Amino acid sequence: MALKARVLYDFSSENPGEISIAENELVTLFSEKELDGWLEGTNRSGQAGLFPATYVEIIRSDVSPNNNNNGGFDSPDISKASAPPLAAAIPALAQQLAQRVVSQTSQGSDDDWDDDWDDRSTATDDTSSRAPAYTVTTSLPGRTAAASQQAKSSATVGRNLNRFSTFVKSGGEAFLLGEASALVKDGDRICVVMGQYGPEWQENPYPFSCSIDDPTKQTKFKGMKSYMSYGLTPTHTNVQVNRRYKHFDWLYARLVERFPVISVPHLPEKQATGRFEEDFITKRRKGLIWWMNHMSSHPVLGHCDVFQHFLICGADEKAWKMGKRRAERDQLVGANFFLTISPPAVPLDLQEVESKIEGFKSFTKRLDENIVVVNTTINEFARKQITGFKKEYQRVGQGFRLLGQAFELDQQAYSTGLNQAMAYTGEAYETIGEYFAEQPRQDLDPISDLLDLYRGHLANYPDIIHVQKGALTKVKDCQKLDGDLRDRCNIISCATLAEVQYFHRTRVRDFRSQMQHHLSQQISFFQKITAKLQDALQKYDE
Amino acid sequence: MALKARVLYDFSSENPGEISIAENELVTLFSEKELDGWLEGTNRSGQAGLFPATYVEIIRSDVSPNNNNNGGFDSPDISKASAPPLAAAIPALAQQLAQRVVSQTSQGSDDDWDDDWDDRSTATDDTSSRAPAYTVTTSLPGRTAAASQQAKSSATVGRNLNRFSTFVKSGGEAFLLGEASALVKDGDRICVVMGQYGPEWQENPYPFSCSIDDPTKQTKFKGMKSYMSYGLTPTHTNVQVNRRYKHFDWLYARLVERFPVISVPHLPEKQATGRFEEDFITKRRKGLIWWMNHMSSHPVLGHCDVFQHFLICGADEKAWKMGKRRAERDQLVGANFFLTISPPAVPLDLQEVESKIEGFKSFTKRLDENIVVVNTTINEFARKQITGFKKEYQRVGQGFRLLGQAFELDQQAYSTGLNQAMAYTGEAYETIGEYFAEQPRQDLDPISDLLDLYRGHLANYPDIIHVQKGALTKVKDCQKLDGDLRDRCNIISCATLAEVQYFHRTRVRDFRSQMQHHLSQQISFFQKITAKLQDALQKYDE
Repeated sequence: MALKARVLYDFSSENPGEISIAENELVTLFSEKELDGWLEGTNRSGQAGLFPATYVEIIRSDVSPNNNNNGGFDSPDISKASAPPLAAAIPALAQQLAQRVVSQTSQGSDDDWDDDWDDRSTATDDTSSRAPAYTVTTSLPGRTAAASQQAKSSATVGRNLNRFSTFVKSGGEAFLLGEASALVKDGDRICVVMGQYGPEWQENPYPFSCSIDDPTKQTKFKGMKSYMSYGLTPTHTNVQVNRRYKHFDWLYARLVERFPVISVPHLPEKQATGRFEEDFITKRRKGLIWWMNHMSSHPVLGHCDVFQHFLICGADEKAWKMGKRRAERDQLVGANFFLTISPPAVPLDLQEVESKIEGFKSFTKRLDENIVVVNTTINEFARKQITGFKKEYQRVGQGFRLLGQAFELDQQAYSTGLNQAMAYTGEAYETIGEYFAEQPRQDLDPISDLLDLYRGHLANYPDIIHVQKGALTKVKDCQKLDGDLRDRCNIISCATLAEVQYFHRTRVRDFRSQMQHHLSQQISFFQKITAKLQDALQKYDE
Repeated sequence: MALKARVLYDFSSENPGEISIAENELVTLFSEKELDGWLEGTNRSGQAGLFPATYVEIIRSDVSPNNNNNGGFDSPDISKASAPPLAAAIPALAQQLAQRVVSQTSQGSDDDWDDDWDDRSTATDDTSSRAPAYTVTTSLPGRTAAASQQAKSSATVGRNLNRFSTFVKSGGEAFLLGEASALVKDGDRICVVMGQYGPEWQENPYPFSCSIDDPTKQTKFKGMKSYMSYGLTPTHTNVQVNRRYKHFDWLYARLVERFPVISVPHLPEKQATGRFEEDFITKRRKGLIWWMNHMSSHPVLGHCDVFQHFLICGADEKAWKMGKRRAERDQLVGANFFLTISPPAVPLDLQEVESKIEGFKSFTKRLDENIVVVNTTINEFARKQITGFKKEYQRVGQGFRLLGQAFELDQQAYSTGLNQAMAYTGEAYETIGEYFAEQPRQDLDPISDLLDLYRGHLANYPDIIHVQKGALTKVKDCQKLDGDLRDRCNIISCATLAEVQYFHRTRVRDFRSQMQHHLSQQISFFQKITAKLQDALQKYDE
């Protein structure tokens, strides 16, 4: 018998793979297993796809031992699929959070992802079977033994009622309240050291980078399915491994889960159609290169097990699956991540931390706003060069040709030289027009791409700031409380500020090198024009 | 009693100083003395100004000995002011011709001309009192003794009935028919030699050039009148003389009258208002420099008495007046000009002449058309650089500044260098925007000015071609006739082709040097931009 669910709130599909559902509608579920907070099923119009799990309640018509069945088959027991009632009370936020994940994992629009659907379900299943202590599924207050147990130890510290707050979701609150516990091996330890400009991640003693080769098109199922494969060669192994976009995608999901206050940049956008087209592949590859650079050079991300597995594991299917399973069963995710942090000896001044975080908040806000303006300007400038500038130079070129053509009617041998020079000048201007049209690809598009990447990157920071601020607020609320709370807040602060520091360092590095690239390209461009004009000028001496 | 005239045809004023008059309207004349074919008076609306003399007939109500008065005061005798009836039959052409002169001599709109009005009238008066044999005023067929006398000697060759044809007006027809006669001294002789590319003017054995200093503003009548004075220094005397625009204007009128198939370029345009403004003065000066260069280097124009008088005569008022009077009484004008031409020994093949002239006609037509297109393109390009290009670069500059400003909020000491470099880059782009806006003045405006000059120059050629074609047609019409006619046609052809040759030589020289100037300027421009960008790039290393 088909599994049904009743829709609690209207949901409008906004992305490919999603379906719209309306309040009180009955939907048929393909499975009650959630995929990152989403369920799959068909709506009353017969459309199949994803919708947020928290927007529906599963109608349990079967008798199961876990179910508080009241015995009546006609009035089925209603229980939430997995989300707590509070989640349902803030559907907008829930949807937003769900989308942040689903935007990277949505299916149906990308063939090179489809074929691994079953694999994925298993992974998600594995994740949920891990019963993480601080995820939404188990945080119904007082319902789980763990929660009631932990509630004791922090009886005087109020819990955040908003179960969907990032502070709560990330595990930040649980850690602050001393609820995190896991075995941290020495190899897992992440050191924050006090640098010249504040806390920073201890540098990776074995720095490496990773090159990405041009992607190649692969097919399987006798050509029915095709996908792009990227050759990655990390410098510390110098062995190439082949990875598909779905592997990046899987890695991304692991990292986001693993590191609450570290910004894992979004992967380059997917595209529903035309993804084998050159432009798209080039742009994705550029995005992936930047992503890989960011990952490889990040002292924490670059060093972590799952990323190393991704970079090193060869074609051995079994080894890959083992590492995959291991990563998916990792205990040091969410709240437990903070257990791995070793802060500097001297604790931070929390007031100073607050001011720094406030400053960073203003900074990210302003940068985000300005990036939008600058990107519009740059794209408009590129468009003008490709259309207007090109046209103007070409028109002038045609003008000079026209003059030359009129001159050719003069039948005077001694003006042949001039006529040829005029024709050459006309051509030169037409070529300069082409130069203008080709140039943005060299020096404006890369800036625009970088700005896009940074915009995506910046979008991670409100959550990170939120975790930090949540911790500070909680500590302020209970000033008289134990030093442990302050210590734990110090740990969160150290990690956050180290990540902020890292952001600034990479930002300065990225923008410096991009501006240098831009200016060098512009210089070559104008030198190329100058050379063309010098050629033309010379013709008048001949 | 006021002198009246009846208007024969509608005339619409098109230039400052002219007034509109309507058919049958009575206008009051200030004087019956014509000024280059124009009369001055007031129309029925009370407006005072100029109108073409041929458009009205003077109502003679006074009894004069020269007048065929039929005695009736009530029905006044109507006689043309000076134009023959045929002229009235082709008002469009008459108007066109009249305007060619008046456009250079119209008054009322230019103060620095006004104060010499009386002088001018005298000059014109002098000219008409000279009774030139081939000007409009005396060409009523059969009316003058000279005309009837000459009619005999060319009884078999038909006269052109259109008394306003350039062929007739220029004196070309009269010369061809053997009606020209004047004393030609050796010094007046103008040699046409056979060069590599056809007939050409014998080069001036004493070539010279002439510099024009910045004009200075002069006043007279206790500051009531002001005018610009140009300092001319010809290289062959190396003595500076001061000339006003009105002197150029007078010279121009003399030269046009003197040399029928030589193109005397128009003087730079006058401007009714703002003529002391820098832009206008600069443009006029540039135009005058080109004009002076053309005149000085022209083997015939540069050498002739009136031009030499203009260049050499100092501040001695009496000497100036004497030279002026001499030039105005010159007998070798119009038809007599051709008497001064010494053709090469071997006469030209008239068929070849015809084909060359046809070719030149197509050439001038095409060049004229293309100049219009090119000038529009160039002006549009200049406009785009001043507005659009500037704006785009400045916007991008502001964009980089904006990014830098956002970066400044980051409070990280190590990003100060980048922030300053970004700010500098922003400034650099804004400066480059300014460069774009300033550039057209350096390298597009001069081309545009040259094109304007050549357009004016080209406007002279239809008349020159017309004279040549008139001569050829007349010779064809009477193939069996005497060799004298062919000889005289050969002289006209030699002079015309020599002038065409000269046009091409100066054109090639002018356009080659202008294009070289343009390209050099463009090269410096792009090098300036490159240098600015290199400065900016360097900031990222600091």
